[in-house]
Amino acid sequence: MTKKITIAIDAMGGENAPEKTIHGVYLFLKNNEKKNDFVLSLFGDETKILKELSKYDINKQNIKITHTDSVVSDKETPLTAIKNSRNTSMWKCIQSQIEGESEISLSAGNTGVLLVISRMILKMMSEVAKPALAGLWPNQNGMNVVLDLGANIECNEENLIDFAELGSALYKSLFNDKPKVSLLNIGSEEIKGTETLKKAFKRLNGLSDDNNFIFNGYIEGNEIMRGDSNVIITDGFTGNIALKTAEGTAKFITDNLKKSLTQNFVSKLSLIFSYFSLKKFKEKLDPRKYNGAIFLGLNGPVVKSHGGTDNLGFYYSIDLCYKIVKGNLMDQIKNNLNHLKSDKKK
Amino acid sequence: MTKKITIAIDAMGGENAPEKTIHGVYLFLKNNEKKNDFVLSLFGDETKILKELSKYDINKQNIKITHTDSVVSDKETPLTAIKNSRNTSMWKCIQSQIEGESEISLSAGNTGVLLVISRMILKMMSEVAKPALAGLWPNQNGMNVVLDLGANIECNEENLIDFAELGSALYKSLFNDKPKVSLLNIGSEEIKGTETLKKAFKRLNGLSDDNNFIFNGYIEGNEIMRGDSNVIITDGFTGNIALKTAEGTAKFITDNLKKSLTQNFVSKLSLIFSYFSLKKFKEKLDPRKYNGAIFLGLNGPVVKSHGGTDNLGFYYSIDLCYKIVKGNLMDQIKNNLNHLKSDKKK
Repeated sequence: MTKKITIAIDAMGGENAPEKTIHGVYLFLKNNEKKNDFVLSLFGDETKILKELSKYDINKQNIKITHTDSVVSDKETPLTAIKNSRNTSMWKCIQSQIEGESEISLSAGNTGVLLVISRMILKMMSEVAKPALAGLWPNQNGMNVVLDLGANIECNEENLIDFAELGSALYKSLFNDKPKVSLLNIGSEEIKGTETLKKAFKRLNGLSDDNNFIFNGYIEGNEIMRGDSNVIITDGFTGNIALKTAEGTAKFITDNLKKSLTQNFVSKLSLIFSYFSLKKFKEKLDPRKYNGAIFLGLNGPVVKSHGGTDNLGFYYSIDLCYKIVKGNLMDQIKNNLNHLKSDKKK
Repeated sequence: MTKKITIAIDAMGGENAPEKTIHGVYLFLKNNEKKNDFVLSLFGDETKILKELSKYDINKQNIKITHTDSVVSDKETPLTAIKNSRNTSMWKCIQSQIEGESEISLSAGNTGVLLVISRMILKMMSEVAKPALAGLWPNQNGMNVVLDLGANIECNEENLIDFAELGSALYKSLFNDKPKVSLLNIGSEEIKGTETLKKAFKRLNGLSDDNNFIFNGYIEGNEIMRGDSNVIITDGFTGNIALKTAEGTAKFITDNLKKSLTQNFVSKLSLIFSYFSLKKFKEKLDPRKYNGAIFLGLNGPVVKSHGGTDNLGFYYSIDLCYKIVKGNLMDQIKNNLNHLKSDKKK
């Protein structure tokens, strides 16, 4: 029998926790009833967790609960958290990873604190200079991996190359396919962009052929969702602006669409006929499906769920954790970084 | 009688010119039949222009044609263009501005060449270190001005402050209102972002009260279309990525919506009832309405129409030129820069 995957879950992080997180746990258990290869290891107030669990008809054999006394508040800053957070559900959750009791951590709590605690406890991989936040982004053919989404506002070409290796390992672990990697830029010609991008382009273009991804050159912002690339590399400032601009644009358009389709009796009538089509459309774009940013470059993966997501969003982020460990993310990363290292020596 | 506004138009620039450009000219004349305060000064192949004009029932009293022998090709680079372009419609168009024969230029031709030629002929304003490309961006309450959209990939805080003055002058000339100005960043707290942004924030925050705009602090990418700010300031790299990402997201969503609404008989039936609502929705988001990026910081404004736009898009960019001159953009800019100068002396 192979070893079970253990996912450490901060049950107390984010809005409406632990109600929301435990509902998400229930959805994951229900959708994976026939599997017996995982343990969901919950950290938090045991009484509250048990109370929430009692609402559902759950087989508890794949659940483990570790009681913790306190919770990282939204007001805590990364600096104070290092001192104040040692007994929190978030800290204990990540602590379990370094002690070999879990393979991945998930929290919907305070982002800044999560990044600092994770880095402190798990430590950077020796081959990587800066960690990155990676996200899934829908495109015409499926999903992209985009990174960095905000962990580092300034990056040099070495960081961008590390991100290419980390991001392609993530893509491979999730989709089991050799990805096409592109650099986000303001034009597709080689002469465009910052000096850092030009240097990264040259280095990525020069990597040996048996590598772990196909370098696809530059892409522009309008190509992110076109589906020609699988992994899109950028610094954390640009990535964060792009992600949030896309979110804002999507909201602007769907708000206006909703307004248009409900403005008069005739348009409301049309909704009867288009109900199922629009439902499918809405489902495809549902941001809860892409919930979960993956913190890469540490000696273990940490997933940050959106703090404001609901039970379904939290379910998707548990599912993401499961897939990441099943796809052997850490092995994929080490493999990629070894390749990079041997390539540098040449 | 007040002096007429003269808009210099490169009739040969962009796809399907001069057919498209002259059709745009016709639409502008038709929509402004009762006005007599402007001249459209067309530059290009006179025979072709006259042939296109003959298709429409046009009163030619507000049109002037200047024959030019050649056209800037799409393949021309900024470097070669300086030597090769002196007899082109684009060059003569901008040349007419410096000779006092027109107040603004419009071209749908080669962007790189247009920027270089404009800068060479019109020269930078002495108070401004770098020019910027500004665009109109729809939001929940109307329109934003966003700059820089790609003229400068690296900017210091002085450049960003100049952009605030230039952009707010543009907003005022178009909408006759004191604008709220924001800096695009990855968080709203003062400590977030690059050193350049922090310095620009401090400087803008310290400007005296009787200034020409209200400084509104930082905004994030998802707030660009919310309508709380009127002028959004960023460097050309970030601005270009944000703009193109928004375009790509809008295309992704509307493509998927179209697919959903035409996928089966019932959903197609619904289109009969939602036809007018969806038409209004489409019209509101029509990118042709925002066609035209404005090159600011030179001794005269130059508008770049999208090369691939159609007659209606070109019409909107002529209309934009008319409004910019009517709103006394250059006076507004000088006024703003004077204020900045006197503020620096304090």
